[in-house]
Amino acid sequence: MVRPATRDDASQIARILDDFNLEFGDPSPGERFLTSRVTALIADGSKHFLLAWTAIDEAGAGPEGLAQVDFRPTVWSDGPVALLEELYVVPGRRGHGLGRELMDAVLDLARGRGAAMVELATGEDDTAARGLYESAGFRNRVEGEQNAAMLYYELEL
Amino acid sequence: MVRPATRDDASQIARILDDFNLEFGDPSPGERFLTSRVTALIADGSKHFLLAWTAIDEAGAGPEGLAQVDFRPTVWSDGPVALLEELYVVPGRRGHGLGRELMDAVLDLARGRGAAMVELATGEDDTAARGLYESAGFRNRVEGEQNAAMLYYELEL
Repeated sequence: MVRPATRDDASQIARILDDFNLEFGDPSPGERFLTSRVTALIADGSKHFLLAWTAIDEAGAGPEGLAQVDFRPTVWSDGPVALLEELYVVPGRRGHGLGRELMDAVLDLARGRGAAMVELATGEDDTAARGLYESAGFRNRVEGEQNAAMLYYELEL
Repeated sequence: MVRPATRDDASQIARILDDFNLEFGDPSPGERFLTSRVTALIADGSKHFLLAWTAIDEAGAGPEGLAQVDFRPTVWSDGPVALLEELYVVPGRRGHGLGRELMDAVLDLARGRGAAMVELATGEDDTAARGLYESAGFRNRVEGEQNAAMLYYELEL
């Protein structure tokens, strides 16, 4: 099952985000900081979190997966662009279809808000995630003749 | 020279964005639609446009390049993330350093707003753009051991 998060879920979301970064070797600002940020961003409507469990009767326990979605306006259409900022399933619960269930919920959320496009960035070597994205219809190729891959770059300030 | 755009620049920005998409074989909603969107997004502060000219005395003419930047909040830091959505120099003005000048202005804008990160997506075969981004310090590699490339995916709804 998947449901939207509320502010009451903020500390559990923070724990998952923290674990996520530690698993992938990224620095994390820590659970306390994340709880504060997640609470504020849910409260003002600027981020959307979807939480997933493999079984309905486990919904009292911490979520086993989450998706984090940002919507922003675009010059190209009246509807917004959805950016899937995080998609994560806890290690012990992988292989049960939670990623797919979260993705379906993300696409429903995006369509419900009239989004024209959903975007995401992922590592070239994350074949499980890429398989999920590609089976959902995501494309990594530039439109037009060249058919080159689209790359994501970042610069920390 | 580079300066921030105002609503009065909207129709010239729309023309450049339209030309940009036609040059790269992407569909465009047309100049009239783009003018309306750009006007609204400058007015409400949700997009930032920087305009560039090779010579100050040409500032009365249409801009020769532009950068479009979006800021969004993030769970990972108090400061926002800047997304460089468009960076474009008109064909006849390339090779004069306008791209670099626009990039410097983008980074100044992002630092001025306390951004923690600047992101962008580009085509693997766009070597001129990638050279500019990499010389400005942008990295396409996932942090940590794997050092895999980061890929950008999109799905039109």
